[in-house]
Amino acid sequence: MKFKVKSELKYKIKSESTIILSIQALETEQKIVSEELVISPKTDFKELLSSAEANRLISLALKPTENLSISYQAIVENAFIIKEIKEFKEVDIAKLPSDVLSYLNPSRYCQSDKMYRLANNMFGYKKDDFEKVKALTYWIYLNVEYLSGSTNSETSAYDTVTQQAGVCRDFAHLGIALCRALTIPARYFTGYAYQLKPQDFHACFEAYINGQWLLFDATRLMPLNGMIKIAIGRDAADAAVANIFGDVAFISSKVSCEFLDKDFEPFHQHHENRFAISYL
Amino acid sequence: MKFKVKSELKYKIKSESTIILSIQALETEQKIVSEELVISPKTDFKELLSSAEANRLISLALKPTENLSISYQAIVENAFIIKEIKEFKEVDIAKLPSDVLSYLNPSRYCQSDKMYRLANNMFGYKKDDFEKVKALTYWIYLNVEYLSGSTNSETSAYDTVTQQAGVCRDFAHLGIALCRALTIPARYFTGYAYQLKPQDFHACFEAYINGQWLLFDATRLMPLNGMIKIAIGRDAADAAVANIFGDVAFISSKVSCEFLDKDFEPFHQHHENRFAISYL
Amino acid sequence: MKFKVKSELKYKIKSESTIILSIQALETEQKIVSEELVISPKTDFKELLSSAEANRLISLALKPTENLSISYQAIVENAFIIKEIKEFKEVDIAKLPSDVLSYLNPSRYCQSDKMYRLANNMFGYKKDDFEKVKALTYWIYLNVEYLSGSTNSETSAYDTVTQQAGVCRDFAHLGIALCRALTIPARYFTGYAYQLKPQDFHACFEAYINGQWLLFDATRLMPLNGMIKIAIGRDAADAAVANIFGDVAFISSKVSCEFLDKDFEPFHQHHENRFAISYL
Amino acid sequence: MKFKVKSELKYKIKSESTIILSIQALETEQKIVSEELVISPKTDFKELLSSAEANRLISLALKPTENLSISYQAIVENAFIIKEIKEFKEVDIAKLPSDVLSYLNPSRYCQSDKMYRLANNMFGYKKDDFEKVKALTYWIYLNVEYLSGSTNSETSAYDTVTQQAGVCRDFAHLGIALCRALTIPARYFTGYAYQLKPQDFHACFEAYINGQWLLFDATRLMPLNGMIKIAIGRDAADAAVANIFGDVAFISSKVSCEFLDKDFEPFHQHHENRFAISYL
Repeated sequence: MKFKVKSELKYKIKSESTIILSIQALETEQKIVSEELVISPKTDFKELLSSAEANRLISLALKPTENLSISYQAIVENAFIIKEIKEFKEVDIAKLPSDVLSYLNPSRYCQSDKMYRLANNMFGYKKDDFEKVKALTYWIYLNVEYLSGSTNSETSAYDTVTQQAGVCRDFAHLGIALCRALTIPARYFTGYAYQLKPQDFHACFEAYINGQWLLFDATRLMPLNGMIKIAIGRDAADAAVANIFGDVAFISSKVSCEFLDKDFEPFHQHHENRFAISYL
Repeated sequence: MKFKVKSELKYKIKSESTIILSIQALETEQKIVSEELVISPKTDFKELLSSAEANRLISLALKPTENLSISYQAIVENAFIIKEIKEFKEVDIAKLPSDVLSYLNPSRYCQSDKMYRLANNMFGYKKDDFEKVKALTYWIYLNVEYLSGSTNSETSAYDTVTQQAGVCRDFAHLGIALCRALTIPARYFTGYAYQLKPQDFHACFEAYINGQWLLFDATRLMPLNGMIKIAIGRDAADAAVANIFGDVAFISSKVSCEFLDKDFEPFHQHHENRFAISYL
Repeated sequence: MKFKVKSELKYKIKSESTIILSIQALETEQKIVSEELVISPKTDFKELLSSAEANRLISLALKPTENLSISYQAIVENAFIIKEIKEFKEVDIAKLPSDVLSYLNPSRYCQSDKMYRLANNMFGYKKDDFEKVKALTYWIYLNVEYLSGSTNSETSAYDTVTQQAGVCRDFAHLGIALCRALTIPARYFTGYAYQLKPQDFHACFEAYINGQWLLFDATRLMPLNGMIKIAIGRDAADAAVANIFGDVAFISSKVSCEFLDKDFEPFHQHHENRFAISYL
Repeated sequence: MKFKVKSELKYKIKSESTIILSIQALETEQKIVSEELVISPKTDFKELLSSAEANRLISLALKPTENLSISYQAIVENAFIIKEIKEFKEVDIAKLPSDVLSYLNPSRYCQSDKMYRLANNMFGYKKDDFEKVKALTYWIYLNVEYLSGSTNSETSAYDTVTQQAGVCRDFAHLGIALCRALTIPARYFTGYAYQLKPQDFHACFEAYINGQWLLFDATRLMPLNGMIKIAIGRDAADAAVANIFGDVAFISSKVSCEFLDKDFEPFHQHHENRFAISYL
């Protein structure tokens, strides 16, 4: 499905600084029909791919300026499959590809190693991994309050599991940590999000089930098929919108995502059935 | 320099389990003259390379047994350069290779994002990155007590910076976290360690200075040129000796590292001069 | 009911040290028929009452010795009432006595301020405070694993709520924290415990319901009417068996509690009915 | 010295709620010449003394209202002694009064039990307790950034020691925790503060040295003899300006402190000499 995505970020650069951005759509099965990146004042930048996940990064070496503006827009055809998870094939850890294996490890914001008992006490009884992930996603949705400003860039799943408030990033981190604690590989997923209100970058998570990455979103703030993939990673440390080195003040951001085809049919995960979505 | 390294791990396997081991010497400039891996009772295993760092992993699918024994031995020529860091070239973050960039991110056991002020208050005044890393390494050596059993697999740099006790793993994590908080890429390094007492696997850390990875060890328990590299990673989550999935009881481990050439000349970092060691 | 309680603590005193002990039975409605305290080698001590709670403390100024032995034994008639909580009178915080009010505050090991949402999400729907406390006690019993050695003197309710393992002290702290998060005053209670296996000092908690302190024990390891009260406090920081200042090594402890009357009729809290026990 | 202090607190009460306030000057050696408390709309309140410390509390049972205003003003003669600490008498813990003893315990915001090594590594070499407390107070002043909004009501000394930013409450908690870790009793002290900019309630801490409580303030934001004592406690959990139970929104607070005598001679602690101040 075709979308037009835009983001505009403004910063005040107070000292020589570096900003590394992750705002461009990934090119996988997902097709980038056209895209444009405008930086003002005109600044040289370097494009690179993150080492493990091949996310697209833009690296900017900046001199002081009152108003740095980074403007990205693209027309993108996202790519996903919706399918019924009829029967479950148990994960054979010993045979996992090594790039999947690392998503079982705890990470900065997803301390799964501290949550084995909790995760198993709450969700271990479910009959298979798909039911477990649906159940934990639903539990987060029911118990964690979406509350802007309640958390910050240091907040982790270990905080959120008890404090039960946060934003999309925190919902995703908790989902990932609980999955890994159940020995289900899980990773962070960021993107542009159609019908998200208010419009912003969005984060959710993928769990590795039946040999494929399925998308889950405990916020339930948008249809699951309206994502345009930007980046994946272990957690937000790998896939932050912006990593800033230097004395930089954030001024504003503006994000939008528009549907260009007609008749958008939203896909939502149902707690009761076994349909799932996988981004390609 | 040529070393003979050995490790023997014993476990009781109580349920169908998977163990993923990181005990083999890496083949980089470091040469593996010969090596042997014996698993008893005989068990199929799969060798794989970890996705980001190309560490060698052994993946074992196990059935219950009273006494699983994994025995590795190898003759290895380790590879390093000792050099004087005469002048310092400031890191240009915007030009860092992407595989180095990710070692600036906080990770499970190295919450550098929580230590910016502390790291800069303590070490920011030093004239260059090499002096900063030597100073923080020395500070850890002076202030953190090496105390077996004082920490566990959940202990992180955020704990150790205040509680000031731990083992080699904790010393390494704190060094890494402080480096990253100072915007110096840093990573975890494990290996066999000559003259370490008692003999065991060892962990220390590398910092990226002047375009190369230099090795630092805040424990000062062994000469820096006596390491045989096993693995690197963001922290112990990436480079654990063993990741265990299932009901497995640890029985014992036995590690040794013997020097096969003659006249070992130990290299130790001196706080006062600018000689450093880099593994290849 | 009459009990004979004994405790014997042994320490090696390596430097001039102070030990403050809380091992004597309280004299409230509870009657001390006889008691004896023997310290060997003979040592002067001071008896004092803790400021807020009037716990009995023994303060020992010690010189180095290989084997300090503190031996206490007493015959005590404990005092409690078992009653049905027929109807619930809502707490009027504005009218709470000030000595009860402070048991709503968070304390070292009971960070109730971080658990409001969690406590209310889990137990807020229950119809009154008694049902809430019974429910949270039962939840702890079902979900937290009693596991000797899994925690230490720094472990707090904020850890236990997620990590779900601990000993009686941790069970009590979690109960207290959840109560306070629900605006129910709660405090720590230590004592000798009849039929506890293995015999040791025990800790549980009291919640202030209908104008009285009711006893709850999430471990379910002993009958609730077999306690001989030693101390109360905000948490273990107020009511530790021993506070040690100096270089002191713990050698051993031996605790026992014997029933001197006949026909002990155990009282256990039932999740389904509304009988409760209150120590006097 | 005579001061006129005022505070005005405004809240929106959204549900039946209770507020417990600690805003009145204490009557100790400190003399309350006159005082007035006005609550609008007119509301019954209860005055009580906190159990351990005899702080003055006002307990308000409230019905919903758009604009609850609590207005307190008083003319107070504060009482203190400034003296030179000529020689130091070592604390004999075994002889401490029991009301002082409890200020050695860790508390919610002052986890001294986690800071023994750190405190002793940093300040243990100083020759006596007074020098230790001066040194740690100075270290906090130099290293912790006063930054409004950087912390919240859950922030504790364990956070601040590493994150090194906070407000007066955090400075006080860290000072207390470090003292207790050095086996020096320490407690929280709140008051009106002359020449504090901007005007607000202030918090600092007292350490028990030579048998008396001495006042320390790591913020250095005001002269130490310009405090009018409101409350003492283990930490902010005991001495919060307002404890709120119910759905209450804070609207505003306004605090002032005016000097009524002439020729205020400010007393500041000097790092180099041994003059200290003790409130009576």
